[in-house]
Amino acid sequence: MSVPTLLPSWRPSATRDALITFLDAASSLPRPTRVAAFDNDGTLWCEKPTYLQFDFFADALVAAVGADPALRDRPEYAAVLGGDMTEMGAIGLERVALALAELFEGMMPEQFTAAVSQFMDRARHRTLGLPARQTVYQPMLELLEELRRREFTIFLVSGGGTEFVRAISEDLYGVPPHAVVGTLIEYEFGREDGLPVLRRTARVQGHANEGAEKVANMQTQLGRRPILGVGNSGGDREMLEWACAGDGPGLALLVDHDDADREFQYVSAAETFAEPEPITQVAHRLGWTVVSMANDWATIFPAPTD
Amino acid sequence: MSVPTLLPSWRPSATRDALITFLDAASSLPRPTRVAAFDNDGTLWCEKPTYLQFDFFADALVAAVGADPALRDRPEYAAVLGGDMTEMGAIGLERVALALAELFEGMMPEQFTAAVSQFMDRARHRTLGLPARQTVYQPMLELLEELRRREFTIFLVSGGGTEFVRAISEDLYGVPPHAVVGTLIEYEFGREDGLPVLRRTARVQGHANEGAEKVANMQTQLGRRPILGVGNSGGDREMLEWACAGDGPGLALLVDHDDADREFQYVSAAETFAEPEPITQVAHRLGWTVVSMANDWATIFPAPTD
Repeated sequence: MSVPTLLPSWRPSATRDALITFLDAASSLPRPTRVAAFDNDGTLWCEKPTYLQFDFFADALVAAVGADPALRDRPEYAAVLGGDMTEMGAIGLERVALALAELFEGMMPEQFTAAVSQFMDRARHRTLGLPARQTVYQPMLELLEELRRREFTIFLVSGGGTEFVRAISEDLYGVPPHAVVGTLIEYEFGREDGLPVLRRTARVQGHANEGAEKVANMQTQLGRRPILGVGNSGGDREMLEWACAGDGPGLALLVDHDDADREFQYVSAAETFAEPEPITQVAHRLGWTVVSMANDWATIFPAPTD
Repeated sequence: MSVPTLLPSWRPSATRDALITFLDAASSLPRPTRVAAFDNDGTLWCEKPTYLQFDFFADALVAAVGADPALRDRPEYAAVLGGDMTEMGAIGLERVALALAELFEGMMPEQFTAAVSQFMDRARHRTLGLPARQTVYQPMLELLEELRRREFTIFLVSGGGTEFVRAISEDLYGVPPHAVVGTLIEYEFGREDGLPVLRRTARVQGHANEGAEKVANMQTQLGRRPILGVGNSGGDREMLEWACAGDGPGLALLVDHDDADREFQYVSAAETFAEPEPITQVAHRLGWTVVSMANDWATIFPAPTD
C-alpha cells in the first residue's frame, strides 16, 4: 500500500476521514475564517512526565542555587529540586510557578528568549531518550503543514508562559510569536541611560491561560474565532467548544493519550457542573473527534534529522 | 519628470531619502527582525476634528437615545450629544469613553464588528467632504505596501479600541486582526443554551494603550520589537524610542500635521520630566525622521475609487 501524501503519519481511519472532510469543507470558506487554534503541551508535543517548561525552570533553579546556595532553603525551590510532586501540590502549583518566575525577574525579553533557546539546544526528554526538540508529534507537524497549505491562520493557545512558547513556536511549528497566546508575565517599562527598557516582573497579567480564559484571550489578543480547535486536556475544553459554536463548519479535535508503549497513557479531567469528568468523556458527549494516539497515528515522533 | 515607482506620493526630499535608506538597510536583516509598528489615528488616517471612533460612538448614542430618550440626561451622554468638548474635558475623557463603551455592553464580538462595518459604510468625514474610508493617508498606504513587499511584519498599535481598529484594519490597511494591539475591553465567557458565548463588558483590561503601555503591550501581545516605529503624537513617543533602541538599524518616523490647507495643523504634546513638550521638538532632540505633510507628501488622501 502506498503512503498517502496527505497527512502520511495518520493511519487510514474514521478520525483521519473526519479531519479530511473538515479540511475540504473549510477550504471553500473565505480565507479570514480559516483559523485553527492549537494547545501546545500534550497536543503538539509531549508533556509527560513533566512539562518542558518546568524542566527549563528547574534547570534555571539549579544554576541559581549554584550561585546562591541559600535558595535551596526556600520551600518552593526545595520541592522542585527534590522533584517532589506531592510537596509541590501541598505548597500549591501556582505558588511554585510564581516562585520559579522570580528567577527571571528583571530579564529583558531577548535575554529570556535566548535562555530558552540555549536550554532547548541541550535538553533531552527525561525518559524517551530524545532531544527535547524531537518530542513534537509528527502527525501534528503534518497537520500544521496541511493547514498552512490551505491558507489557515494558525494560533497557539497554551497554558504555558507566553514567552516560553514563543521562544520555540517559530522554530518547531512555524508559528510566529504574535500568533501565540499563553499565560502572560507582566513587563515593566523604564529608562536606563536614557534608553527605553522592558524588564520582566514576576507578576502574572490577569489569570493563567486555561479554560474560559483561552477563549476570552483568543478574542482580546487575536480577534478571531477558530473553526478548528485542537487540544488534549480539561484546560482546552472551552476552546474546543468555541471552535464548534460558530455559524459554519467547526471541528474539535481531542488527542487521547492512550499509547503507553510509544508515549504515555493518561486522561485529563475537565469540570462539568463543578464535578470532574474525563475529557475523553466530554469529547464523546459533545461529538468531538477523538484522536487515539495508539490507533490513529502511525508515527508519534519525527525521525531524527542528524 | 517621471513619477518614482517607489513610494510615488512621497516627494523627493531628505525624509524620503532617510526612509528609503532605512528600508534598504532593513532588507538585508533576517526576516523575523523586519517588524514595523504603526499608530493609527493621525498616523494612518485623519484624526481631526474628532476621532472616527468617537463619531462611531456618538452615532450609536444617537440611535440609543432614539430608543430610550432618558439616556440624554446622563451628563456624559449630554456632553457628547452637544459636541461640547469643554464639558467632556470637565467630566473627564476616560469617564466619557467608559460611558460610551456601555452602549456596546453585552454584544458578541461579531455583532460589534458588524456595527463598525455598517458605520464605516455610511460615515463621511465631518469637514473634508470625504467618505470616512477615504481619510487614510495615501503615502502611508504606499509605505505599508512597500514594507509588505520587503516581507516586514506590520503591527497596528493604537490607543483606540482594539476591536474597533480590527474591524477596519484588514480592509483599509491589509493588517489582520491578530496584528492589532489597542485599548482592550474585557469579555465575559458564559454559556447560553449550552453553547459558549463571549459578551463585551464595559471594563478596560489594564490601561489605555498609550505611551509606555504601547511598548509593554507590543511585547506581551506580539512578542516582537519593531525596528520601524511610525506615529504622530505624545502617546507614540515611547514606541518610537523603542523602535530605535535595538541593536541593529532602527527608524522612528513622526508625522507632523503642518498642512492646514489639505488636512489639519496641530502639534501633540509629549511629557518630558512631567513637563509638556511638543512631540516635534522631542523628535528633533532624539534625531527622529519627521514627515512634513505639507512638504513631503504630494498627495494626502487616495483618489476616489468610484
